[in-house]
Parts: sequence; C-alpha cells; structure tokens
Amino acid sequence: MKNSFGQNLTLTLFGESHGRLIGAVLDGLAPGIRVDEDFIAAQLELRRPFGRIGTQRRESDHFSIVSGVYNGYTTGTPLCITIPNEDADSRDYETIRHTPRPGHADYVAECKYHGFQDYRGGGHFSGRLTAPIVAAGAIAISALRAKGIMIGTHILRCGGVSDRAFDDLDVDIPRLNAAQFAVLDGTAADSMRHRIEQVAAEGDSVGGVLETAVAGLPVGVGEPWFDTVEGLLSHALFSIPAVKGVQFGAGFDMADECGSRFNDCFAAEDGHIITKTNHNGGVNGGISNGMPVLFRCMVKPTPSIRKPQQTLSFSAMETTTLQISGRHDPAIIHRARVVVDSVTALVLCDLLTGRYGTDYLRGGRR
Amino acid sequence: MKNSFGQNLTLTLFGESHGRLIGAVLDGLAPGIRVDEDFIAAQLELRRPFGRIGTQRRESDHFSIVSGVYNGYTTGTPLCITIPNEDADSRDYETIRHTPRPGHADYVAECKYHGFQDYRGGGHFSGRLTAPIVAAGAIAISALRAKGIMIGTHILRCGGVSDRAFDDLDVDIPRLNAAQFAVLDGTAADSMRHRIEQVAAEGDSVGGVLETAVAGLPVGVGEPWFDTVEGLLSHALFSIPAVKGVQFGAGFDMADECGSRFNDCFAAEDGHIITKTNHNGGVNGGISNGMPVLFRCMVKPTPSIRKPQQTLSFSAMETTTLQISGRHDPAIIHRARVVVDSVTALVLCDLLTGRYGTDYLRGGRR
Amino acid sequence: MKNSFGQNLTLTLFGESHGRLIGAVLDGLAPGIRVDEDFIAAQLELRRPFGRIGTQRRESDHFSIVSGVYNGYTTGTPLCITIPNEDADSRDYETIRHTPRPGHADYVAECKYHGFQDYRGGGHFSGRLTAPIVAAGAIAISALRAKGIMIGTHILRCGGVSDRAFDDLDVDIPRLNAAQFAVLDGTAADSMRHRIEQVAAEGDSVGGVLETAVAGLPVGVGEPWFDTVEGLLSHALFSIPAVKGVQFGAGFDMADECGSRFNDCFAAEDGHIITKTNHNGGVNGGISNGMPVLFRCMVKPTPSIRKPQQTLSFSAMETTTLQISGRHDPAIIHRARVVVDSVTALVLCDLLTGRYGTDYLRGGRR
Amino acid sequence: MKNSFGQNLTLTLFGESHGRLIGAVLDGLAPGIRVDEDFIAAQLELRRPFGRIGTQRRESDHFSIVSGVYNGYTTGTPLCITIPNEDADSRDYETIRHTPRPGHADYVAECKYHGFQDYRGGGHFSGRLTAPIVAAGAIAISALRAKGIMIGTHILRCGGVSDRAFDDLDVDIPRLNAAQFAVLDGTAADSMRHRIEQVAAEGDSVGGVLETAVAGLPVGVGEPWFDTVEGLLSHALFSIPAVKGVQFGAGFDMADECGSRFNDCFAAEDGHIITKTNHNGGVNGGISNGMPVLFRCMVKPTPSIRKPQQTLSFSAMETTTLQISGRHDPAIIHRARVVVDSVTALVLCDLLTGRYGTDYLRGGRR
Repeated sequence: MKNSFGQNLTLTLFGESHGRLIGAVLDGLAPGIRVDEDFIAAQLELRRPFGRIGTQRRESDHFSIVSGVYNGYTTGTPLCITIPNEDADSRDYETIRHTPRPGHADYVAECKYHGFQDYRGGGHFSGRLTAPIVAAGAIAISALRAKGIMIGTHILRCGGVSDRAFDDLDVDIPRLNAAQFAVLDGTAADSMRHRIEQVAAEGDSVGGVLETAVAGLPVGVGEPWFDTVEGLLSHALFSIPAVKGVQFGAGFDMADECGSRFNDCFAAEDGHIITKTNHNGGVNGGISNGMPVLFRCMVKPTPSIRKPQQTLSFSAMETTTLQISGRHDPAIIHRARVVVDSVTALVLCDLLTGRYGTDYLRGGRR
Repeated sequence: MKNSFGQNLTLTLFGESHGRLIGAVLDGLAPGIRVDEDFIAAQLELRRPFGRIGTQRRESDHFSIVSGVYNGYTTGTPLCITIPNEDADSRDYETIRHTPRPGHADYVAECKYHGFQDYRGGGHFSGRLTAPIVAAGAIAISALRAKGIMIGTHILRCGGVSDRAFDDLDVDIPRLNAAQFAVLDGTAADSMRHRIEQVAAEGDSVGGVLETAVAGLPVGVGEPWFDTVEGLLSHALFSIPAVKGVQFGAGFDMADECGSRFNDCFAAEDGHIITKTNHNGGVNGGISNGMPVLFRCMVKPTPSIRKPQQTLSFSAMETTTLQISGRHDPAIIHRARVVVDSVTALVLCDLLTGRYGTDYLRGGRR
Repeated sequence: MKNSFGQNLTLTLFGESHGRLIGAVLDGLAPGIRVDEDFIAAQLELRRPFGRIGTQRRESDHFSIVSGVYNGYTTGTPLCITIPNEDADSRDYETIRHTPRPGHADYVAECKYHGFQDYRGGGHFSGRLTAPIVAAGAIAISALRAKGIMIGTHILRCGGVSDRAFDDLDVDIPRLNAAQFAVLDGTAADSMRHRIEQVAAEGDSVGGVLETAVAGLPVGVGEPWFDTVEGLLSHALFSIPAVKGVQFGAGFDMADECGSRFNDCFAAEDGHIITKTNHNGGVNGGISNGMPVLFRCMVKPTPSIRKPQQTLSFSAMETTTLQISGRHDPAIIHRARVVVDSVTALVLCDLLTGRYGTDYLRGGRR
Repeated sequence: MKNSFGQNLTLTLFGESHGRLIGAVLDGLAPGIRVDEDFIAAQLELRRPFGRIGTQRRESDHFSIVSGVYNGYTTGTPLCITIPNEDADSRDYETIRHTPRPGHADYVAECKYHGFQDYRGGGHFSGRLTAPIVAAGAIAISALRAKGIMIGTHILRCGGVSDRAFDDLDVDIPRLNAAQFAVLDGTAADSMRHRIEQVAAEGDSVGGVLETAVAGLPVGVGEPWFDTVEGLLSHALFSIPAVKGVQFGAGFDMADECGSRFNDCFAAEDGHIITKTNHNGGVNGGISNGMPVLFRCMVKPTPSIRKPQQTLSFSAMETTTLQISGRHDPAIIHRARVVVDSVTALVLCDLLTGRYGTDYLRGGRR
C-alpha cells in the first residue's frame, strides 16, 4: 500500500513540496456526502502558518476538487483534491542532498531512493503533504458530524506549559474546532505562544503533546487482533511528521498504577452502559466501548532550526556545520492538531465503512 | 484483513482460549529458512507463566508445525502452527457474558458479535492467542539473526521500579534474550518481582513499560507516509493485549525539549554514517536510518484481579460486585516482552521482504 | 496477500498434499451464521473421486472446525477448518523433483522455491488443497442461501459432449447442487461418463467447460474499476487448478456479433427491472445488474496421465521419457464444479460484506 | 482497494468523462526509471480514435506528470499523471440517467450511487478513464523493456475476420507496438477496417478477440493460490470496459482435447529449459514457466450504437425506444489493445516488484 491508508476508505497521497502540485485521492466514500468547500478551506486555514509563530512560506492553498464530487455531493467514485505549490523557493535546498539536516529525512531518502528523490524542500517527505490530508479529512469530519461523531484536539503541553484536561466534550470540542491555537485554558495558550516566540528568537524550536477526544463513536468498531482501533489510529498518526509517540487513555502516565485503579468499572447512566473512568481511552480488546476515544500524540520539536548544527558531508565524509536558512516553523504542534483531527476522521470513516457498509456515511436518497 | 497482519509476510491468527486449538498461518516466508523447533519451544517457554508471579493455568504449549516446513526448512508456502488447549476450565466463565469484567473485552464482544462469541476465557481476545504469535515470531527472529538483525526487550519499569537504560546492545540483547525475567539490572529485577508478589497477595495487578532495541536493521526500510516503520510497528504492537502506549526514541520523555537538543546530529564512525544521539529512535521520516530502532510499550496492569470490582449486570442493568475467580496473572509484562520481540520480528521481516523481495530472508540454495 | 483471497471475507489456505493436514482460515464472517457440518460433509463428498472416473487415492476428508464456531453458529472471529491427510503414498514422488511432469507445477516450484518445496504429491500446489476451499465455501453457500442467493454449476462440455443450456434456474440449480455428476441433460451425462472411462482406459485424460449461474445477487455489487464482479471472480477462479479460461455471459461465443445483438435491452417484469437477454452475464460496468450472473470456466485435461510423455531430466539436462505411476484422475471437471461453486460463494460473500457491512450475512440476534 | 490495483505497484484511478480532469496515481515504482514523455504521448496516440473507425470526440490528451518524476527519472515516490478533459459535450447525456443505455453502466450506477453519480458521458465508468491507465502503463512498459520483457497485442479476430497467429515474437511484438491498427496480417487488417466502416454505416458496432504475448518474463513469478499470474492478470484485464472473457494459452479452444495433447513437454534448447508446445500459455500452477505468457481477451461490441434500441424509462417504468446521439466508436478493439498492453505491464511490474524487491525495476545509481 505504501503511500495509501485505509482498507474500505483509502487515502492515497502524492506530490512534493516544490513540485507542481500536491494532492490526495480518497476512494471508498459513500455517495451523497455533502461537500462544503468553505469548510475545507477553513480547515486548511487552521493548518496554515500564522503570526510570528509560523514559517514565512505562505501558501494560499487554493485547492481544487477535480473528481468525485458532482453538484456539491460525493459521487461515490474516487475524489481527487489537488493543491498547487506557489511559494516554493528551491534555491535554499541545493546543499541538503549531500549535507543532510539532523532530524530530517534527507539522509534516509538519499539511501532509499539512490539520489533520484526530489530533495527540494523535503520533497515528498515535506510537512506540506499534510495539506491534502487536511482537505480530505475535512470531508470525513463532515460525514462523521452528520452521524453525531465529533473529534477535537488540544495542545495539552507545549514548551513546558500545560493545558487543562478535557472536561465537558460537548463544550470543549466545538470550541477547539473553532480555535486557530487550540488550547482549552486561555492563560496556558498565551504562555505557550510566548514560549514559542522566545524559542523562535533563539533560532530554536519546540514540540509538545496533543490530546484528542472522539465523542459519539458506536460500540463495537475495531477488530480483536491487528486491526484494533488503537492499531489503525496509531498506524496513521505516526505518519504525521514529528509524531514520535501515541498513547490511548491513561497510557504511560499510569504505568505505575495497579489494576484495581486502572480498570474502568461499568455502570449505567440514563439507560446507557458507560464506564465510570476512562483509563482505557474508550477501547477494550481493540474495540470501541462507547466511551470517548482518548489519545495523545507526542510531537517532537521541529527539526529545522536556525541554530548551527553539526552534521556530515556525505561527499567528504567529514563533519561540517550546517546553518539552515530558508523559512521554518519554530513550532508545528498548533498546526499539527488539525492534521491529527483529519487523520483520525479518515481512520474512523474507514472503520465505520467496513463495519456498516459503503452507504453508512451517505445522506438520504437524492 | 482483520485478524491478519503484514503485506508481504502475513500472519493470520485463529483460535479461542478454551477451544480445541489455537494457531497461526504465516504466509510469504522465503523458502530455505532453517526452522529450529527447540528455539520455538524456548521462546514459548519465555511466554509461559512461572513461579509465584504467574497464573496457575499451565499449558504445555506442545506446538505442531502442520504445513510449510519440509526437512527442517521453510518451503516458501504457508506455514501453519497449531497449539492445543489443554488446561482450560470453562466453568469459571459462565457469568462473564452478562457481567462483563472491567478492563476486558467481554462487553465489546457482546455488542460486536451479538452474543455469538465464544466468551469462555476471553475467547479469541485471550492473551493465550499470543502463543502462536510467539511461535511464528521465533521463525522470524531466527531469519533476522541470520541477517545480523537482533531484537531485545527489557522491562524498563514495573511496579514503580526502574531498570537501567540500554548500554551496549551487543551485550545487552543476548543477555535479555536468554532471561526469563528480562531486566538489565539484577537488583531492579529482584525489586520488581518482589513488588509483583506483594501486589498478587493483595489480589491486585501491576503493569509497566517495556523497552525494545533492534540492532542491525539496514538503512532505507519503511515508507514516507502511512507505512512508516513507526506506523507498521505500532499497528502490530497495539494488538498485544494490554499495550496502551507506544513511543519511539525519546518520545513523551522529551516533549519539553528544544529542537537543538532533540535533533540527532550525523557523524562518521569507522567509515559508517551514524547519529551521535538517537532521540528519533532510529527512524527519520518514517524510514530506518541505520541506528538502533528504539521504542517503548506501555503495558497496562492485568485487568483480571481477585479484588472485588463494581460492574454492571446487563440483564438487570444494575450495578453489581464482581469477584473474578479463576487463575490469573498479577503481572504479564515479563511474559509480554517475548510477544513484543515476536511482533517486532514479524513486522521487520514483512518490511524487509517488501524492500528486498521474497528471497531476502532465505539461506543458500539447497 | 499470496495464498489468501478476499478483502472483507478472507480465505487463507495452508497445507501440502502429503503433509500432516491441510486447511483454511476464513476471517470476516458475520457472527450468527448457522454452521451445518452435514452440509459441509456433503459438499466435500461432491469433490471426492468416485466410481471408475476418479483416482484411487481415497481420502475420508474428516474435517474439523477448530475455531470460530461455538454452539453451531459462527462467532465472528476467524474460523479454521483442518482436514487430515490419510492416504498419502509418498514413494511415488521421489523422481518428480528432477523430472518434472508436463503440465504440472513441479518445474516452476523448483525454480521459485530453490528446491525447498515439499514436492510430494504436488505439495502445496495439489488439487487436494481445494478440499478446504470446499469446506469453507459450504459455509459461504449456506449464508448466501439464507439471503436468497443460489449458485449452480454444470458440466457444459466434456470430452466433446455438450450439456443443454441453463433454462429455469429455480429448477436447474437445486438439481445440480444435489447431483454427484452435475449435468442438466441425463443423456449427455451418460455420454460424458462413458467418454471419461474410455479415455481413462487409454491412460489419457479429458477436460471441458463448466457453466455457472448465480441467482438472486442484488443490483449494485462490485466496483467500476479493478474490483469488478468479473475481475474478483476471475481472480479467484483462475486459482482453481486446471482452469485456463473464464468468460462472462456470451463471452468468446459472441465475439463476431454486432452491438445491436449483444446489448441486453432493459424491460420491466412484475415491477422489476430486467434485461430481455443476458449476454453480459448479469454484470454491467463491473457491477451486478440484478440478472443472473453467468460465467464459464475452461478446465484443461488433467495433466497427470498414465501414457508415457517426453520431459527433461534437470540434472542431466537430457530428454527422458516419463511414465507417471501413482493414482490419478482421468477427469476432474466433475469434481471441480463444487470448487467453482465454493470459490464463487466466497467471492460473493466478500463483495456483499464490503457493500453492506460485517453483519449482513448473519442471522438474527441470538 | 476498489479503484486501485496492485499490491507492490499500485495504480489508483480517478476522474470522470466530463469532469475537469482524469488521472492516475502510480505508487511503488522503483526510483531511477527513465520517464520518456514522448513515449507516453505515442502510447496515448495509439489509444486515440482515428479515421472513419473512431468517435468524433477528439481529445488531445495533453497529460501532465505532476509528481513522482524529477529530472526525467522516477523518484520512487507516488507518480501522479493528470489529463484534462477538453472536448466534453454534456448536453447529450441529460436523458441517460432515467433511460439507461443497454449494455452500459447507467442503470447499475443509478442503483449503486443512488443518483449521486456523475452520469455525463458515463462518468467514472467511461472508457476515457483508460487514458491514464495507458499513460501509467507506458512507464511500466519502458521499465520492463529495460529488463528484456516485451509485450505485444494483436487483433486476432474482429467482425468475423481472423488475423494470423503469433509466429516469431522478436519480430511480431515490435511490429505490433508500432502499428496504429495492430494486426499481423496486412490483408486481414484491411478486411477488418472495411468491416468496421460497414458496420458503422449501419449505426452498429463490432467487437472481437485480442491476443497478447509477453516475452522474457523470468521463471518463478506468481503464487500457487489466488495471486496466480492468471488470476492477477485477469483481475485487471476484466476491468477494461468491454472485456468479457480472458483465457490463457489454448483456453476454450482446446476444451475437447486430451491431456496427452494439451500437456506441454519439457525440453532443452541452447541450454535453457523450454516446453515444446505452449498450450498452458507460459503459466503452470499459477507461476510463470519461462515460456511466453499468452492470453486472449474477448472484447464485446461497443454498446453505444446509433441504431434505435428498446430500453426502460425508470420514472415511468415503461418501455421506450432509445436513440443514442452523441459521438461514438463503431469499434474500440483496435484502441483497447494498448490498454491491454498497459494493464499487463502494470500487473507484471507489480509481480516482479513483489518477487525481487522495490529496486528491481530501477536503472543504475544516479
């Protein structure tokens, strides 16, 4: 499958950072899903760099849906979205093929593709490829909303500053979805942004932790082995550049706890079966249990920094000092959260389509 | 794919805890891989409960390779391993269909399978299904060793006690592979085992963190998007019962660090390209970079505990107290580590077969 | 995927002709499908050699369902069926590794598996592997029947003798399904059997053409490109040993016709939309159109014949005469038809599960 | 997978006949394959209608490679080709949604997509979607040629006229590849073209049989069950619109023969192992045997004809007469052959990549 993901709803990604255009094909969508181009644009806006905490490369992301939508609804056949590259400046990248940037894919690309890779701006590895994921994800998010399934992600921690935990998802998720800098506690948001600016001034970068909640997922989705909810989500989440850790529910934080505390006891609430705690993050035995699916992604600090770094010149096999010029983000965690939402929505649509068939996500008969 | 994993080397799992037998089919193995039944038995031994820290259900795990091996070597056609269930006592499980155990899959199984699931002993969800994974994994581990690729896992943390970090993999990995209770620091091992016994006496359970190192993986394995090394490994690792978190390299531990510290600088050592640190866990842009692949799995405390717990009776929709009898593990982390090694080996064989073709793992011509 | 087939309902085949046992894993079955072991046995009986027109190797095919069925119903988790090999006589096969039988896989197996293959009795290539396909297919056939979908296959042509065409499927299909030698016209059946016996006496073999009808498949199953009904069926049908041609509807027979005759005109009948002819075999644009799916498989004459044949000795690279001893079928077409039915049922269950979700094939709540 | 094909080299198709553009993503290509845009254009030229035997819809097919190629070579990351739609005239198609054309996908599309499909010009079902297959296939054909693997297809039969059989592939294949109307015997070509013109004048259409030869495929490619060479090729070939039959080697033509004639005897020639005949079409047990792979596709007569036809009006559920206006082909078999070559090349590249790894098809290090 390589650059594709999903068995019933499949996303295929193509393009390079400085190529002509980037895009994605989404196949397996139900017919009759309303496609709201304004919402896609709004989601892309959340991914775009902004203010003093983003790169100066500014792409308008004027996407085109070139197939799979007719009269404003999905047709049920493959939907292709393309986004042109406009503001690419390839001069900056001539050196990186032979002087790989630490923390980047330059070196592995050279080894894997034997020098044939398009190395300009990271090529196919570029974080820019998350734009078509967000555009495609927007359609998935819309389809899930129509089914009462909501996804929200906040920056739980960034630059040493913590946000408050999720509280009332019915309030928290819509608020996060509307925010450019998605933090639940406004004071924490200010501290984080201040910290990012500070680090940017030093020519350095920061990462952090994103926390995601999915509300409304039906019980019984996922498989006991391998295609578990956790396995499928993590598979896709780890391909978001910079994600180096994924945990569900309490995860590593409760590694020292006993079973009697970790176990989530079942109870009834308004005639529904719930668990009193949710340390398992809404998943038991790989299968959704009806509670909110909760997970966290660790986002490493952006590897492109202005500070000089030691690296190796391939040609000479000699240590050299690399000073990355170009335009880079001191943090991408606030931009990454909409990518997490999008990837999550795509995985859930895939799972739901497999479980309930190809018409599950569509609206009524035309 | 459901209960299968791997695109080029595919593992399919079947069986239930109290059924006639459990097993796995491994398809896509190169012909000519030496199959050492003693090594398979030894690996299964590492998974078996032992001493006072394991369940009293004792299975001899007399596996049979019923296809795919001829004269001691893989044939290249599907290899099927079966393991009979011997010591199953199904009396204990009649109640759990209607009174689901907290932290277990009883409730989701009832919802997903509409009451048709074999609920005895957890059925297909049982940790017992990891036995065929270990048996199949043993063959993968052997094949990787012949290629100079070594995998080792230790209990980094258990019951509040920490092991020392990996140091010299050439020494540490073989030591761990031979140990029943895989800890690098003997004193830590004693403390952990003591803690497990203590918790067992209280009718409770503990979890912890496993850390794995893979040495010798070639550069250039994995894909930029979706089928990344991290994505494929985590997909499979999350299906090990009780794993609720996976992180690569420094992961969550360095969430507060700056890029200038997190980035791994390239350098030359004995004519090879290395990185001076390994915070990225041997993977850049989803692709192996030639450094050891390092990752950690959070293993939640075993959900089956003797202590009384609150749960819900489905039939009455009333809260009830559940006292789990039967034979259970106060900890499974020490048994889980050989499952982690096995799953890792299977994923790597899958990746390597895709990269280098179906003959890569075979020995010479017969 | 290799020795697996199906995306939503997956069959994985394992075993060798003279190994310990052969079997199949069927994953993705809905829970709650009634499993009738007598019906499975009856279907296996249809595959077994009989009378003077079959090999003298007689296997009782005492299958065991070792997982995935509980209290007579599918559980929804992987169903594994095993069948022991009893009457294997491996003495006959020592020579074939180096003196490949014409029309068999001996030579390609040696090249592909580098001498590690289990060559006894054809090993994994043996037609005996169709027994687990038939056993698994029996469950799929049952599940389809409960949905009103019927499959029937007859020997349209064998040894130069033709059967009559399908007429009334409601009558023809049940009759065929009950017949050991499935021919619609009794006189043709006698002539075919006579011809097979004649050819057997000459130490030779015959093939022919099977024709299959599927009644009751809903409109709208299949995909426009690649995963067409024709593509998925042919993919699976061509793996039945000896099948060398597959055609849908009129196929090659109307290669000289004009569009005005080939096109199937739409009409209404009892309020349903039908086509007046069915030259397209129930499939338009890769998707079922509600008419019976009709297709034919060409079955080549059994390659194992008693007559001496020219072949090559690998070791000496010299032409040699091969006289195949052992026990062989002068025709397999009458045994192959239940394999065609089984494969067809499995493919349709896969398609229907994908289209309508994983619960589509199950019976009511337990 | 739906509108995708191939496990190691995957083609994903998108677009509709009258949409903005159509295209394909090809993922899994080795890096370093030379991409010759002139050759792609020449292959597209072979697919284009011409003279009096083609539709008057004339598309220039100015394709763009928008990703995956850098400096004239494949990068190893997904290659996307787009082709704009220029000469679409949608006025002609408003009626077909409710008055489905016989032999077309209009009716099944309405059922499957519930009225949301883009029905203009057949939408996603249009034969126009074979243009990106041909463009992508051209790259696969180039890569195979560099490995000494040649593919050629001729019109074996059309309108009741037969071409001569393949003779010397080294001469026949290059000749066919250069011909716009691919027939081995010039006289037969004239008769066929004359017949097509005649039928066109009557407002009718013809089909026929294509025969393909693949020379140079290594021994040992393909799997024993399911992913056989025949199964994979037929799966893809049946998605070419109008293909209703696929046979390998002698196929249906030798359905009446005995095994002693059908079997291909092994022999040595210039130190190579060959078979004296090739009735099995170069495949034994699903695996290539080193002889040319030979197969035939039955192409049904083009369903769009000018002659009035009976059909059903959905809305009224009444029989009506349909007179298809618009611009249509009286035959597509001569255009389909380059599609067959392209699909064949893509399947073989997929098989070879799986067998020998992702670098097999690349040229040398840059």
